[in-house]
Amino acid sequence: VQLSADGRALRLLDQTRLPIEEVWVELRELEPIAHAIETLTVRGAPAIGCAAAYGLYVLSLAFPDDPEAFQAAFDAAAVRLANTRPTAVNLFVAIEQQRGALAKARAQQPAVDGAGLRQALREEATRHVEDDLRFCLEMGAHGASCLPAGGILTHCNTGALATSGHGTALGVIRSAHASGTELHVFVDETRPLLQGSRLTAWELMHDGIPCSLLCDNMAGALMARGEIQAAIVGADRITANGDAANKIGTYTVAVLCKHHGIPFYVAAPWTTIDMSLASGAAIPIEERKPEEVRRHGGNLRAPADVPVRNPAFDVTPAELITGIITERGVFAPGELAAQAQG
Amino acid sequence: VQLSADGRALRLLDQTRLPIEEVWVELRELEPIAHAIETLTVRGAPAIGCAAAYGLYVLSLAFPDDPEAFQAAFDAAAVRLANTRPTAVNLFVAIEQQRGALAKARAQQPAVDGAGLRQALREEATRHVEDDLRFCLEMGAHGASCLPAGGILTHCNTGALATSGHGTALGVIRSAHASGTELHVFVDETRPLLQGSRLTAWELMHDGIPCSLLCDNMAGALMARGEIQAAIVGADRITANGDAANKIGTYTVAVLCKHHGIPFYVAAPWTTIDMSLASGAAIPIEERKPEEVRRHGGNLRAPADVPVRNPAFDVTPAELITGIITERGVFAPGELAAQAQG
Repeated sequence: VQLSADGRALRLLDQTRLPIEEVWVELRELEPIAHAIETLTVRGAPAIGCAAAYGLYVLSLAFPDDPEAFQAAFDAAAVRLANTRPTAVNLFVAIEQQRGALAKARAQQPAVDGAGLRQALREEATRHVEDDLRFCLEMGAHGASCLPAGGILTHCNTGALATSGHGTALGVIRSAHASGTELHVFVDETRPLLQGSRLTAWELMHDGIPCSLLCDNMAGALMARGEIQAAIVGADRITANGDAANKIGTYTVAVLCKHHGIPFYVAAPWTTIDMSLASGAAIPIEERKPEEVRRHGGNLRAPADVPVRNPAFDVTPAELITGIITERGVFAPGELAAQAQG
Repeated sequence: VQLSADGRALRLLDQTRLPIEEVWVELRELEPIAHAIETLTVRGAPAIGCAAAYGLYVLSLAFPDDPEAFQAAFDAAAVRLANTRPTAVNLFVAIEQQRGALAKARAQQPAVDGAGLRQALREEATRHVEDDLRFCLEMGAHGASCLPAGGILTHCNTGALATSGHGTALGVIRSAHASGTELHVFVDETRPLLQGSRLTAWELMHDGIPCSLLCDNMAGALMARGEIQAAIVGADRITANGDAANKIGTYTVAVLCKHHGIPFYVAAPWTTIDMSLASGAAIPIEERKPEEVRRHGGNLRAPADVPVRNPAFDVTPAELITGIITERGVFAPGELAAQAQG
């Protein structure tokens, strides 16, 4: 997630084509940017936030210079982007940060013009993306010691591709590996969209971190054999009580960890914590298209008309979470609310 | 699994091509028959047993007429077929039944010729296949009342395709549906080979039994929402203590059921019970090729050289099993040993 060389387009590595092809796309208009988020050209809660932040700046290059008209154009774009995906809170955080930057510029500079407003959006987007990378590195530093040597299970992709760099859960794995912990990462392929096999395995192979790919239904058997010592995942939204929404299948990993007495960690920047929601029951869960489940590698592998369930996320209750790793430190789920106030 | 119209070939519906194409193959020679078992043209523990029983008869059509030479040819074919797949015990049971039929014919008819030996193998194979169907129907009758109304989760394919008809776990579902229980079947797609999406969903749609297809990592979330009232699966081998080996992912389903207080049933013919093994730790677990996990719908969706784990089965310990449904009745796992002696 970056700006193009001329600074006028949102530049994305198309994650739907990895690891077969490395294709970068440059987007300048609202519908293509919204579509890229909806169709997972860019995905991963922090990366979606970065794309929205840069995206609103790029779109503002075509907004009118008049501040009222600029604001109206901004509001319309913000509504469209907010309607792309419902679960990850980082999208909404990034949009509200840009809204705040705009309001601040208008309040502090009564004579501000379009150029000044665009400058405010660009600075805020850059700050958002730089913060995201810094938070990932700090999560890695705080969380590395949580991971024991041995088999580490992860689900979905939480690496450089899901953030502005380093990663959340995968960043913690990277930091632990860099600090000398002897890890073997077990990568859930993460059906239906295979973020594990396509993206996480690709990142780990690239970094030379030992790993094995497995189908999502295999981790339990490996735990029973004693091959997995800890699990670590990311989050799309964490509520005040410490419940965490993440990619579908995360809850099953957490239940398996509980059954086997294995620690289960969530790594996410503090912006993923939504203190406005009391518990995970209030998190909207995106239901995606049946074709994602009926098809494999693009090919139909089920009756064409079979009914399908396709929730994109599930909620892991706080009691199954050993620790939540943030840039502020590692907390028990029940400590978040006090930490937010302190 | 049947004999061809001329009675000289093993006739199989190629399960690797379903549900896209319905292709029947007719096999007359050892390597093609062994290959069909290895590559899952025919799969499902009881169906593999039926294929081996008919297969040995079909192969015997080319055996020498001299009883000693006939026996030697039989033994060589039996060794090859026994080396196709290690986990399901039904394969070995069927081969031993044929070996027994041959021994009996030779013992009872001192002047028996090749025609007589072939006749013995044909009769034994027919009995094996007819028994299999009858056992399935009896499992359905015994097990139907185990299933409550509501959501029933199943994993892999245990239907008519996996047996000589009706099915084991899917047969119980069929019988419950036929008896008026209002079921909605949740079908795990069952990665990597998609027996759920390709075969079980196809059978349920064909029968008009309400169903929804889901990825293997979704059942936990549906249990948390209260949408699943029971789970039922088949087995490839059950040991004396009641541990059950079945398709990879079954153990995870059992752990999820335990966590949510949901009954977990195993349905299998009595021949699946291997009293020679004390516990599931002794069951050989087949590890299959990495390409099955790296590829989806035939297309590569992971780094071409990523290491892979691909155990084809896992073992569910007796303490996670509510009941084992057989043609002799429904038993707690701990009751099997006494029942075998009684």
